[in-house]
Amino acid sequence: MTDFSAIDRYLQENRQSHLDQLCQLLRIPSVSADPQRAGEMQRAAQWLVDRFGEMGLTAELIPGAGPSLVYASTPPLPGAPVVLVYGHYDVQPCDPLELWITPPFEPQLRDGNIYARGATDDKGQMLTHLQSLAAWMATGRKLPLQVKFLIEGQEEQGSEVLEQALPGLHEKLACDVLVISDNSQFAPGQPAITYGLRGIAYFELRVHGPKADLHSGSFGGAVTNPALALARILAEIQGTDGRVQLPGFYEAVKPLADDERAMWRSLPFSDERFAQQLGVPTLTGEAGYSTLERRWARPTFDVHGLLGGYQGEGGKTIIPAWAGAKLSFRLVPDQDPKVVGEQLRAFIADHTPPGVRVEVIDLHGGAGVVVDLHSPFMQGAIQAVEEGFGRKPVLIREGGSIPIVAQMVQALGCDVLLMGWGLDDDGAHSPNEKFCLEDYYRGIRASSRLWQYLAGP
Amino acid sequence: MTDFSAIDRYLQENRQSHLDQLCQLLRIPSVSADPQRAGEMQRAAQWLVDRFGEMGLTAELIPGAGPSLVYASTPPLPGAPVVLVYGHYDVQPCDPLELWITPPFEPQLRDGNIYARGATDDKGQMLTHLQSLAAWMATGRKLPLQVKFLIEGQEEQGSEVLEQALPGLHEKLACDVLVISDNSQFAPGQPAITYGLRGIAYFELRVHGPKADLHSGSFGGAVTNPALALARILAEIQGTDGRVQLPGFYEAVKPLADDERAMWRSLPFSDERFAQQLGVPTLTGEAGYSTLERRWARPTFDVHGLLGGYQGEGGKTIIPAWAGAKLSFRLVPDQDPKVVGEQLRAFIADHTPPGVRVEVIDLHGGAGVVVDLHSPFMQGAIQAVEEGFGRKPVLIREGGSIPIVAQMVQALGCDVLLMGWGLDDDGAHSPNEKFCLEDYYRGIRASSRLWQYLAGP
Repeated sequence: MTDFSAIDRYLQENRQSHLDQLCQLLRIPSVSADPQRAGEMQRAAQWLVDRFGEMGLTAELIPGAGPSLVYASTPPLPGAPVVLVYGHYDVQPCDPLELWITPPFEPQLRDGNIYARGATDDKGQMLTHLQSLAAWMATGRKLPLQVKFLIEGQEEQGSEVLEQALPGLHEKLACDVLVISDNSQFAPGQPAITYGLRGIAYFELRVHGPKADLHSGSFGGAVTNPALALARILAEIQGTDGRVQLPGFYEAVKPLADDERAMWRSLPFSDERFAQQLGVPTLTGEAGYSTLERRWARPTFDVHGLLGGYQGEGGKTIIPAWAGAKLSFRLVPDQDPKVVGEQLRAFIADHTPPGVRVEVIDLHGGAGVVVDLHSPFMQGAIQAVEEGFGRKPVLIREGGSIPIVAQMVQALGCDVLLMGWGLDDDGAHSPNEKFCLEDYYRGIRASSRLWQYLAGP
Repeated sequence: MTDFSAIDRYLQENRQSHLDQLCQLLRIPSVSADPQRAGEMQRAAQWLVDRFGEMGLTAELIPGAGPSLVYASTPPLPGAPVVLVYGHYDVQPCDPLELWITPPFEPQLRDGNIYARGATDDKGQMLTHLQSLAAWMATGRKLPLQVKFLIEGQEEQGSEVLEQALPGLHEKLACDVLVISDNSQFAPGQPAITYGLRGIAYFELRVHGPKADLHSGSFGGAVTNPALALARILAEIQGTDGRVQLPGFYEAVKPLADDERAMWRSLPFSDERFAQQLGVPTLTGEAGYSTLERRWARPTFDVHGLLGGYQGEGGKTIIPAWAGAKLSFRLVPDQDPKVVGEQLRAFIADHTPPGVRVEVIDLHGGAGVVVDLHSPFMQGAIQAVEEGFGRKPVLIREGGSIPIVAQMVQALGCDVLLMGWGLDDDGAHSPNEKFCLEDYYRGIRASSRLWQYLAGP
């Protein structure tokens, strides 16, 4: 076993400064959905550039029509593998703000967790790789490979800047393996390496009726109610058996392999405990699949928000001029978000009640990805995680989407390792987002092994 | 024909002051739905008390758990009929504010209309009766009956204060006929007397899922989406044939009389023109009924607003913890809003998908009313309107609800005359609410005849 004592000593001595640095970054409210926060996006990017500078790397900002990309690299090492770490410095919006116990951009340590928007998604997880590389550089250890970083600021909004820049960055980003820490362990104390992600196709649907709100007394009975028409369309998109009803939707979906299903069946997972954890009376979903299969490897439909009409106190008796919904489909590999968009438009055209007109707005989309379990880098990653967390990782898939991942894998022709340090109950897109502080430290330690083991056994 | 020359001269000379007074009242933002506006409600009530004082009547404020009632009366006249004028000084909320061409509480005269929230509903219409009585008093004309006024401040929110006070006010409000101007003429230039109103039962439905918003990637496929569950329930409440699906809903609904249907068929009404006016591609509604029948005399279901989830810019990938809707049923006479509430609760309990729990909140309700076409006061009212507007009124029903009307008719044992001076396109509950200034003056003139003709031919 390779000697990591100098690295481990350094990590032990820098626990407080590593926490302080995380808190610094978490205090920057880099909400990419909010056009008012453009300045904060810049601050977050600059903070990363400065941090790379402190560890001895010259980072650069790659500008685009949106938050800049942050790029940094160790020197090239001819003949050695190249690993590209991808992460993001933008965070989800914070509403409903009143449900946060402490303000989202004032990180607080409670019960061993650091609470803040972005703590787990993705500032905390992403930083582990900067900190572990800093440890190598500070202790003068010679890297057996080249490490590149690409940290973007638009992941929560569809990664358009990176998508636009990608064709021009092939050479700069060229790598053998992509490393991403932006997801969850299987359970507390049970780390995992994730070999599959779902894709996404996200839309806003608007149903337009009368040219202005109408008095529902005088006009009720004469016109189609846009909010009710919207409800009808939404209700028809998914059957009560949990199946998406768009014609052709399942055509590209490959059946799950028997050995995959068997591997997941052996994982400790209780539907009852999971329902209790989420606070729902019962779990539901597509018939014929287990909960893990439905979350990780089956396409799904969700409504994210409802829009339109009177939303204030008391009652206002109007037929609203329009109503809308934000909705998305999670996709599995081989499903194309563009094709799903066409299927959705065709379905809605067929299912729009008379008396209204509909509008479907594309918000963002990305394909899913499944990684080869026999990748030459997989064994190294398993060993790094085992040493970092003290337990062998299980191999799982994840239901979330990092749409740009599929595009990068395709563009760069590389392998990809999804090494999540988070937990399912971190509340990545919810109020009171958190990240377990010990997992932050364990992630740094696992990452410190990665630079060694990805270069070979 | 009775001589009204002194009255008419007075009305002619006071056109400007009658307009100024209307604008004064319209400038008070008396939005009863908004708890922040309690002070404005008081200002509006006090303005009415002052106006009654100027015309020589002592008005009083009757307090309650909400906006005060304003009451005033001319002296009792033994043996003569008593007429009670009912109106309301509260107005609907103004959102969406950005659609108003001029601010809702800064009345502006454009193209012969006065634009402001409350212009037609009900400040402008209600004031006509104060102004006409002021004309009688200023010209020293001897009233042949007793006129009482009851003007409330909670009509747009269900009239709870008046409902609570009603049992204690039987003596004070005792009357032979109730007069209300809070609705529309049949068309521009074609006045109407309305002999039927629909009732209403208004609810908020909330569907609760997980205890917090969930990341739709990690959890999509495992839980029932509350927004989608809401959509399913809403879609099931009304069939695609426009029929409400609650079991028992139509049990109390009387079939329309043939002579009523014939009378309405003879009215000039074009579905095509109406659709164009509202800006909808086509009219829709319950099969087997004409548009006027569906609006005036058939029960309907409408959704007024959608609540819950992410409503900001861009896309947020959550399964919302809850979603909701504001909804109501318009009822016809003999349908009981309480019974409808029970039917709704039972229906929703039967149609709630697994994995969520529902909550139904009563917001307000009131029964519908149909008036005897052969009421002894009807002929007087027809004559008054004909002289005020220069054209014989048609006899129609109205789709809107003044829930307290049915309660007052029942409590006071009186007849009721619904004499609307507004127009269908006044935008009573929409942005850019208006009232035709000439209809304001014609309404005052018709009202000035009413005090004479209601006392006998």
